[in-house]
Amino acid sequence: MLPEAIEAMTEQLKRVGNASSLHAAGRQVRRVVEESRETIADALGARPSEVVFTSGGTEADNLAIKGLYWARRPRRRVLISSVEHHAALDPAHWLADSQGAEVELLEVDEYGRVHPDTLRAAIDRDPGDVAMISVMWANNEVGTIQPVHVLAAIAHDHGIPFHTDAVQAVGQLPVSFAGSGADALTLTGHKVGGPMGVGALLLARGLTPVSVQHGGGQERDVRSGTLDAPAIAGLAAAVSTAVKEQEALGRRLTALRDDLIHRVRQAIPDVVLNGDPDLRGASPSPQDQLEGPGLPGPGFPAARGRLPGNAHFSFPGCEGDALLMLLDAKGVECSTGSACSAGVAQPSHVLLAMGADAAAARGSLRFTLGHTSTQEDVDRLIEVLPAAVERARRAGLS
Amino acid sequence: MLPEAIEAMTEQLKRVGNASSLHAAGRQVRRVVEESRETIADALGARPSEVVFTSGGTEADNLAIKGLYWARRPRRRVLISSVEHHAALDPAHWLADSQGAEVELLEVDEYGRVHPDTLRAAIDRDPGDVAMISVMWANNEVGTIQPVHVLAAIAHDHGIPFHTDAVQAVGQLPVSFAGSGADALTLTGHKVGGPMGVGALLLARGLTPVSVQHGGGQERDVRSGTLDAPAIAGLAAAVSTAVKEQEALGRRLTALRDDLIHRVRQAIPDVVLNGDPDLRGASPSPQDQLEGPGLPGPGFPAARGRLPGNAHFSFPGCEGDALLMLLDAKGVECSTGSACSAGVAQPSHVLLAMGADAAAARGSLRFTLGHTSTQEDVDRLIEVLPAAVERARRAGLS
Repeated sequence: MLPEAIEAMTEQLKRVGNASSLHAAGRQVRRVVEESRETIADALGARPSEVVFTSGGTEADNLAIKGLYWARRPRRRVLISSVEHHAALDPAHWLADSQGAEVELLEVDEYGRVHPDTLRAAIDRDPGDVAMISVMWANNEVGTIQPVHVLAAIAHDHGIPFHTDAVQAVGQLPVSFAGSGADALTLTGHKVGGPMGVGALLLARGLTPVSVQHGGGQERDVRSGTLDAPAIAGLAAAVSTAVKEQEALGRRLTALRDDLIHRVRQAIPDVVLNGDPDLRGASPSPQDQLEGPGLPGPGFPAARGRLPGNAHFSFPGCEGDALLMLLDAKGVECSTGSACSAGVAQPSHVLLAMGADAAAARGSLRFTLGHTSTQEDVDRLIEVLPAAVERARRAGLS
Repeated sequence: MLPEAIEAMTEQLKRVGNASSLHAAGRQVRRVVEESRETIADALGARPSEVVFTSGGTEADNLAIKGLYWARRPRRRVLISSVEHHAALDPAHWLADSQGAEVELLEVDEYGRVHPDTLRAAIDRDPGDVAMISVMWANNEVGTIQPVHVLAAIAHDHGIPFHTDAVQAVGQLPVSFAGSGADALTLTGHKVGGPMGVGALLLARGLTPVSVQHGGGQERDVRSGTLDAPAIAGLAAAVSTAVKEQEALGRRLTALRDDLIHRVRQAIPDVVLNGDPDLRGASPSPQDQLEGPGLPGPGFPAARGRLPGNAHFSFPGCEGDALLMLLDAKGVECSTGSACSAGVAQPSHVLLAMGADAAAARGSLRFTLGHTSTQEDVDRLIEVLPAAVERARRAGLS
């Protein structure tokens, strides 16, 4: 956690009061909540009334996807990218299994990117029946940045609400809710240096998803539950700091990450970098997306690059889990797939959607750099990686 | 918050790691989560595997009520007391409005208590179609303790899962999950001196509600979302301390509360005490419930008493909101209705269910004593109450 977030949170932990109570302590807590709401709105190009606090990214995704589906019934279609986090995919699949939805997974290219034409074609099969669309801002495993501005504009051509899970993007990329054109945007505390157990759904005015969590009617009657003022204060401090420092951090992490990729490739010549090979890492401007150079195909916008802190590789002949344990023993902490489904011996749905075979998917590791990462961390990885890979390969053969 | 809870939480705030990650930091966080789970289970007569962490009481109630309803379809009936918190009532009403449920509100007597015969009669109308039953352990407004042991036993005669919202009970009354016979029990952090934004559903083994929050599959695949380890550590410390100190605190608060009630009655002779006039405040033993003295009617168990820290009055001729503001200006903080629906000028559904008329319900205030309350707080209330009531009455007449 960022020191600013710890301070804001612990300061508030000492106070008592329920933000919905009418007495003085309650009103004071309410003030902290409302100031936090303004801070977050300010940092992310939203209006304060567009900030709906939740218990985190998973809840915000559930609220956006289920809530907008229910609100837009009898429309049945939910269009969602095939590389979403489980917090978005699983609510959609549940809607299909038990609530009558028709879920269509939008294909991605080899870099994990949704082509605008793919969305257009999916909508066109029956535009009037599309309840909502969800495509993440940047992928949590391979780091690929999606052309959200373009996708949101296509959704709006048909009056369809567009949700984006920006959990990975806030603090790593420039994020403007208004600028993106999205109608709903998910963020979470612990990915921006804030506390766990808190997040928000930015929700355009006039859009009212059905509640997923019913009760006292806090948060625009869209989300109920006692407002967690200390965590909210910590979230606001973290978002504010992370957004202020995003450009400098992005530059620093991009350089560090590029060095990491370069030296991993030198050390393990047959390693495969997954995700976008364009390492520029900047979120493209809308103009750039529509007209930029380097289009991979006709009409494909130049949404490009990957999260600055992300490097994701397949190590041929290795089991990712084995390699992870070997590196962990040497003090290098990395992940296979998403932490939220780690421990489950299944190849990543993200890599499979990008066209990887199951073996390559299982032999993959993600290295994530953050605000505490240093050149020494990268040096340490390069120092221990070759022996670990060799050992993991021998284990794989036996 | 209890100092023990603040300490456990801030200690954990400094650490990093996702409890679902496989690397060393992740495994360490996982250890904290699992130790917290054991602490809570131990304190509340449950098994560690029966503790499902949530973002708080509202989420736990939603999970129990919606989740068990969905899991038991095609059964359609949901039986729920008419005095539940909105976090339980509103999910039930939503199931009726949009998911095909038939919700029946169980009547209460003048003290706000569900009579076992009421539950029996409701079940008997169509036992095979009852999906689940929910009755709170103790009421958050008027403090009335419900005969949960007896109600759970009746549910079990028909193989129906029984949920109880014990948010108000844990730390105030002796609570044993196994002893109560309930299949699901809600608790929340900030009501036991722990942090906000965290709670748990105790969930009997073998019972699998459908998820309300889908995603990575944490928490028995019943509840998804990154585990909030700092808040969970704080919750465990708070539950452990609160349960250890419950008996002593209960005795102290009961004496303080009885003094408060006695002196409020002396100061305002026409005041009406709402809830159970039996001030013994102890949770009855199951034996006591079935055979104890003082039965208000044939077959009515002697579930009796009210929460030790609860005093709830109607002040004839006063608007509760006006009186609240007048007391607040004098440094006495109290509530009208539940904080979760405060600010909404509606008479309490709890008081209406107990047979109060709308004017009496609107003229009601709740005084809650907790672990920081002192004799001086009660003295201060008695000092300022008569003038405040007189002034509120004059305002009501004009």
